[in-house]
Amino acid sequence: MAEKIVEELKPFFEPKAVAIIGATNKKGKVGNVIFENFKRNKENGVFKGNLYPVNPKLDEIEDYRVYHSVKELPDDTDLAVIAIPAPFVPQTMRDIAEKGIKAVIIITGGFGELGEEGKKLEREIYEIAKAHGIRVIGPNCVGVYVPDTGVDTVFLPDEKMDRPKSGAIAFVSQSGAFAAAMLDWAAMEGIGIGKMVSYGNKIDVDDADLMEYFVHDDEINVVTFYIEGVKDGRKFIESARKITRVKPVVALKSGRTEYGARAASSHTGSLAGQDVIYDAVFKQTGIIRAEDFEHMFDLAKAFASLKHKLPRGDRIGIITDGGGAGVMASDAVAKFGLKMAEPSEETVKFLREKFPPHAVIGNPTDVVGDTDAERYRLALEAFTKDPNVDAILVIVLFQVPLLEDEKAIEILADYQRRSDKPIVAVAMGGRKTDRYAKMLDEKGVPVYPTPERGVRALAGLVRYAQYLKKE
Amino acid sequence: MAEKIVEELKPFFEPKAVAIIGATNKKGKVGNVIFENFKRNKENGVFKGNLYPVNPKLDEIEDYRVYHSVKELPDDTDLAVIAIPAPFVPQTMRDIAEKGIKAVIIITGGFGELGEEGKKLEREIYEIAKAHGIRVIGPNCVGVYVPDTGVDTVFLPDEKMDRPKSGAIAFVSQSGAFAAAMLDWAAMEGIGIGKMVSYGNKIDVDDADLMEYFVHDDEINVVTFYIEGVKDGRKFIESARKITRVKPVVALKSGRTEYGARAASSHTGSLAGQDVIYDAVFKQTGIIRAEDFEHMFDLAKAFASLKHKLPRGDRIGIITDGGGAGVMASDAVAKFGLKMAEPSEETVKFLREKFPPHAVIGNPTDVVGDTDAERYRLALEAFTKDPNVDAILVIVLFQVPLLEDEKAIEILADYQRRSDKPIVAVAMGGRKTDRYAKMLDEKGVPVYPTPERGVRALAGLVRYAQYLKKE
Repeated sequence: MAEKIVEELKPFFEPKAVAIIGATNKKGKVGNVIFENFKRNKENGVFKGNLYPVNPKLDEIEDYRVYHSVKELPDDTDLAVIAIPAPFVPQTMRDIAEKGIKAVIIITGGFGELGEEGKKLEREIYEIAKAHGIRVIGPNCVGVYVPDTGVDTVFLPDEKMDRPKSGAIAFVSQSGAFAAAMLDWAAMEGIGIGKMVSYGNKIDVDDADLMEYFVHDDEINVVTFYIEGVKDGRKFIESARKITRVKPVVALKSGRTEYGARAASSHTGSLAGQDVIYDAVFKQTGIIRAEDFEHMFDLAKAFASLKHKLPRGDRIGIITDGGGAGVMASDAVAKFGLKMAEPSEETVKFLREKFPPHAVIGNPTDVVGDTDAERYRLALEAFTKDPNVDAILVIVLFQVPLLEDEKAIEILADYQRRSDKPIVAVAMGGRKTDRYAKMLDEKGVPVYPTPERGVRALAGLVRYAQYLKKE
Repeated sequence: MAEKIVEELKPFFEPKAVAIIGATNKKGKVGNVIFENFKRNKENGVFKGNLYPVNPKLDEIEDYRVYHSVKELPDDTDLAVIAIPAPFVPQTMRDIAEKGIKAVIIITGGFGELGEEGKKLEREIYEIAKAHGIRVIGPNCVGVYVPDTGVDTVFLPDEKMDRPKSGAIAFVSQSGAFAAAMLDWAAMEGIGIGKMVSYGNKIDVDDADLMEYFVHDDEINVVTFYIEGVKDGRKFIESARKITRVKPVVALKSGRTEYGARAASSHTGSLAGQDVIYDAVFKQTGIIRAEDFEHMFDLAKAFASLKHKLPRGDRIGIITDGGGAGVMASDAVAKFGLKMAEPSEETVKFLREKFPPHAVIGNPTDVVGDTDAERYRLALEAFTKDPNVDAILVIVLFQVPLLEDEKAIEILADYQRRSDKPIVAVAMGGRKTDRYAKMLDEKGVPVYPTPERGVRALAGLVRYAQYLKKE
């Protein structure tokens, strides 16, 4: 079973040869943007497969030979991307079946989302796929983005949307526009996305299939989902149970309220279902539910870096150079159901010896506004060794005048490497803080822009660790 | 009374002449950074008052004559900024009293926050001030920042912290480090701050005084507070009632939980008090409570642009080009206690005539992924005229391929100007979106990075409008 799903879905992520059905030289057209994506990635040496444009009316696009039909395609073709009008898709599927291609992404819209006529077309396509063992992503979707292999069916040109770098996060989205906005946003934030799948009307490949696949995908540390509705509940639960045992899953399920459910039904035709049921399923299967997309990626960022050193308990130690931020973080610890650690006598004694009298020793430990990087080191030394502390939130307001910024960053990264306790940072501020935050992120210290969001991310780590313990 | 508070506090914001007591030429020292701030602003023509450094050991700092004592100061001095060690402050206060200066910012720390000894010093200073009608901001504070008049006692040098542009938001913070971080952040976000006051241990000028003052300050549309504790509840309530009748106040009160209250007490010695009491006071006085600093500035941004056209009711109309984002916004409408508007028959008819069949007409109205700017115009035309719609949330995912971005921005700004209904935008994405969001903000359309935060800001407008109606 495990090998089967990997074998089936692998061509979507690492095809030997991709056919772009509906490739064209008309700039801006979907079939052109997707062809250009692959071509560019091939020229860059990222996409290592073959690239076959298909269009009955063209002989050549930018030095690439164009195939006039699916039948003509070379035999190594293992992925077809379809970007032709909906009415032509069933016949193309038949050709694909005959050719023996087993993986198809149908970008084309105008199916089930438009009503009964479209639903009929979808069923026709599905029957063909089913009969020939073809796996289908879509229709009405943005498809797949894998920065490491150069697969990129996102039909929004570069000038409309930036592409994120590679990383340990998988992102699956029912909504194509949302997927595009998130990729664009992740690029700006410096968040690495290992694989993105946007499946649109999901007539075949669904959340459960993807979870099964990601169980075996070592590049991925955490899987995030934007879902409006799940069709096959039992299959979803089974796959969820399997994957959460080996890696965390974060789900943003919209349509929680009556208003949202109504909107979801006119968007993807999803039955949003009783929200309490989703809540129960997520809890039961260890999926962590996100409140909104910031929460989803806040959690994803934490898991991407810290999946391998989850906290042993829920007692949080806070180090700060701003008292107010420490108060806010303490409030958040209570709000998100965590505990404030009680520092051990050793910690208090150690810091009392080393710290000036106006620093506040305790939890939070406030290294105060005239801090240097060394005080952060001392506090981290004490907290990482303290048996009463399970996880550490470090707030760095880089505005304080005497802090050697880059030294502080090195110290945080160093303790993140050396200690088995997860360290999460909070940095509030402007452009400089932004730059430093990216440096910290890259060195494995996830950083958040507010104390609340930092603590909420820690709470996600704690919840997942608790789930694994119970299992 | 009104004139009295304005007269008393005006020198803090528009001094005729400021004395920097403890000015020095040692780079990076507090007394140097503050002097340099005023000097730079004077050279730029922003600070129009006189600048008098005071230091017994110096004759000149960078071409400025240095006064050896307060007594020597010219008679036009109406603001003294004190940056000398705590033990010397009482005598300096006596000299200031004798000189007749009536406004003092004490930057110096080492007072009440360090214990009984410091509290004694504070009381001594307060007695002198009281006896001579001197108003004091501080001690242990960052002081005042007013971009329009060039007052800037923020002792963090430029390379540590950016300064925000001017705008209609007043920001008052009990915490100095938090104030600095927020100014830095506001600068990056393009949020305009008209006046910032950070009062530290607030032995004299407090939240209530500042609210009284801002009642009469026409430059300010909305007042934001970060508070850990209020000392004089009755005075606070009185001032709050007065100001909320003419402009909105947003408060972030930390120390909500037991953990937070404990941290607050070791930070500013504040008795955070029973949180339910604060909640009740805020509700009673029409102050809108923020959950965190993002929420605070999200609200401030909305009020800064839309204070003069508050929604008449709580029925929200949503326009989107991404179905998923529309679902999330609909959920948020329910979550924040608002109502989804039911579009009128005229609206539905009008849009049905103009829109292609695959667009979704209703609420949300989904102009869908192949939208151009014109569809946004049509939807706005219908919604602004619809008597069933009180406020409009417009979600623009700028990633969609056919949207003429700048035209869409113009259309939103145009309807914001022409319609009496508040329009709030949501734009999710990366660098390009960021740039467009700033353009929209500048044109009076507040923009938020998630549907939730956009709807939450609308909810703030609705709540405040409801409060004013009841009053």
